[in-house]
Amino acid sequence: MEPKIRIGIAGYGNLGKGVEFAISQQPDMELAGIFTRRDPDSVHPVGDRVSVYPLANVEDYTEEVDVMILCGGSRADLPEQGPALAKLFTTVDSFDTHAKIPEYFDALEEAAKPAGTTALLSVGWDPGLFSLNRLYGETVLADGVTYTFWGKGLSQGHSDAVRRIEGVKNAVQYTIPSDEAISKVRAGEQPELSTREKHVRECYVVLKEGADAAAVEETIVTMPDYFADYDTTVSFISEDEMQQNHSSMPHGGFVIRSGKTGNGTNQVMEYSLTLDSNPEFTSSVLTAYARAAHRLNKSGQHGAKTVFDVPPGLLSPKSPAQLRKELL
Amino acid sequence: MEPKIRIGIAGYGNLGKGVEFAISQQPDMELAGIFTRRDPDSVHPVGDRVSVYPLANVEDYTEEVDVMILCGGSRADLPEQGPALAKLFTTVDSFDTHAKIPEYFDALEEAAKPAGTTALLSVGWDPGLFSLNRLYGETVLADGVTYTFWGKGLSQGHSDAVRRIEGVKNAVQYTIPSDEAISKVRAGEQPELSTREKHVRECYVVLKEGADAAAVEETIVTMPDYFADYDTTVSFISEDEMQQNHSSMPHGGFVIRSGKTGNGTNQVMEYSLTLDSNPEFTSSVLTAYARAAHRLNKSGQHGAKTVFDVPPGLLSPKSPAQLRKELL
Repeated sequence: MEPKIRIGIAGYGNLGKGVEFAISQQPDMELAGIFTRRDPDSVHPVGDRVSVYPLANVEDYTEEVDVMILCGGSRADLPEQGPALAKLFTTVDSFDTHAKIPEYFDALEEAAKPAGTTALLSVGWDPGLFSLNRLYGETVLADGVTYTFWGKGLSQGHSDAVRRIEGVKNAVQYTIPSDEAISKVRAGEQPELSTREKHVRECYVVLKEGADAAAVEETIVTMPDYFADYDTTVSFISEDEMQQNHSSMPHGGFVIRSGKTGNGTNQVMEYSLTLDSNPEFTSSVLTAYARAAHRLNKSGQHGAKTVFDVPPGLLSPKSPAQLRKELL
Repeated sequence: MEPKIRIGIAGYGNLGKGVEFAISQQPDMELAGIFTRRDPDSVHPVGDRVSVYPLANVEDYTEEVDVMILCGGSRADLPEQGPALAKLFTTVDSFDTHAKIPEYFDALEEAAKPAGTTALLSVGWDPGLFSLNRLYGETVLADGVTYTFWGKGLSQGHSDAVRRIEGVKNAVQYTIPSDEAISKVRAGEQPELSTREKHVRECYVVLKEGADAAAVEETIVTMPDYFADYDTTVSFISEDEMQQNHSSMPHGGFVIRSGKTGNGTNQVMEYSLTLDSNPEFTSSVLTAYARAAHRLNKSGQHGAKTVFDVPPGLLSPKSPAQLRKELL
């Protein structure tokens, strides 16, 4: 039997916790340790007997970790940690600042290539599984249009924007794809959809004592960039209801390719995710791709890679023959 | 600019016609010729200036064809043509007899490996894109259940079975996934579903003059293997209605992975296809994978391969940098 793949976790927030759990579901992986910038004694892993180390000493553990899964944020953590850790380890991350992917790719390539490591970036569901479906869609149905819808999902940025309004005690915002827009796309109509037509926004708001509900609602629905371009609904609820019904982090969405073959025949490919926890799902994707990163590295494929470079079979603990027999 | 990928088509039925059309949608491919067992003069390609050659002389064209797309049937044609043509060309086929895939793979491996060709087998939507989604599903959500539903789709075998009944002039049969079953799966209930619970069958029948409708219906719904285990409806229609409403070949279906992460969090991944023409869509998948087969071959990956072995980026005419920028 092959030795288990030893996974390190860099950063222990929601994503790191999700990876810790996901490793326990994979038959051929074990957790080598958690690396944190915080005081290791202040970090409490879910599992027993999990070692927590200072991230500052991570270079002492290159012999104990096969793949490091980077669980920091895309804005401040990964641009710095990604290249630094890729010099030491084969890495997987969920870098999701779309516009900066080319630049981040180059930085990882420069770090990983000479180090003989493999740095698999932007793994998750978008970017990640959604990207794959955009690719399969446009290559198979070359004449067509691709639509990506997000939600129903909690948007952290939009929730924060509502929370900053005077008179608001607590708030969450859900982005919801428009049923009408999706129906048109599914029917093969290939509509041109404006921002307002694709998604609606739902806000649940707890007011501070004595706040003016009408003024808060007006401030929300007219807020530029965030809400003004959308159909936005605002519901006022109690703090109890907020805690009870709005404390999970659901998300998901749709990638739909609508194309034509032959003499105008409609063909529709649709991929959708309904996630009761966005970070736990992203963690599961990262963990499956850690297996692929390890195998790519062992086969000599060094440098920066994306999901587009990964043969799907490398994700599975099953042998190629078993995959052909059971899943093909 | 790279020279265009020169595609040969072996067999010119519905699938071959679909491939001819799909090639015209791809910017970097050209049709090198159609190879047929029939008299070449009796074959009329859709496009002008398309050459038709006898399949018997195919070995004279190894210098003119980069990839041969095999458009014969899985039962009688491919088991023989696949290995024979893989000795001469890099090939792509849609072999879909699930139980015989391991054996067919071995035969192709034996033919292609010493010849330095690449033989990409079982490419289409099931096996093919559905297989990929079963794989992505079970590797990401390691604790879960995968469901495949087929339809709404025309089933050739079941339609033939109805047509053989005495008193039946013409008939089509559609397999339809059960809405109730799909709703349960989508809700994360992970139900155990019997054959009868997953799909229903709809038959549209044109009777011969004087035939006994009640007897025909009884023969259909009690037919062992084909209908007895399903909820089957039978509608009697006129020959005109048959020609007008039931002459296309729609198909499609769903692959749904329902899994748990963390402390029992539900996560659902769903892939679905709604195809107005089953053969035209399969042809489009074959054609996109012909590009990948050509690239695998050029990079020295010889022998038998499946969709599990193909890095998704190889399907696209775009460069890796362009894919990262536009689709990731």
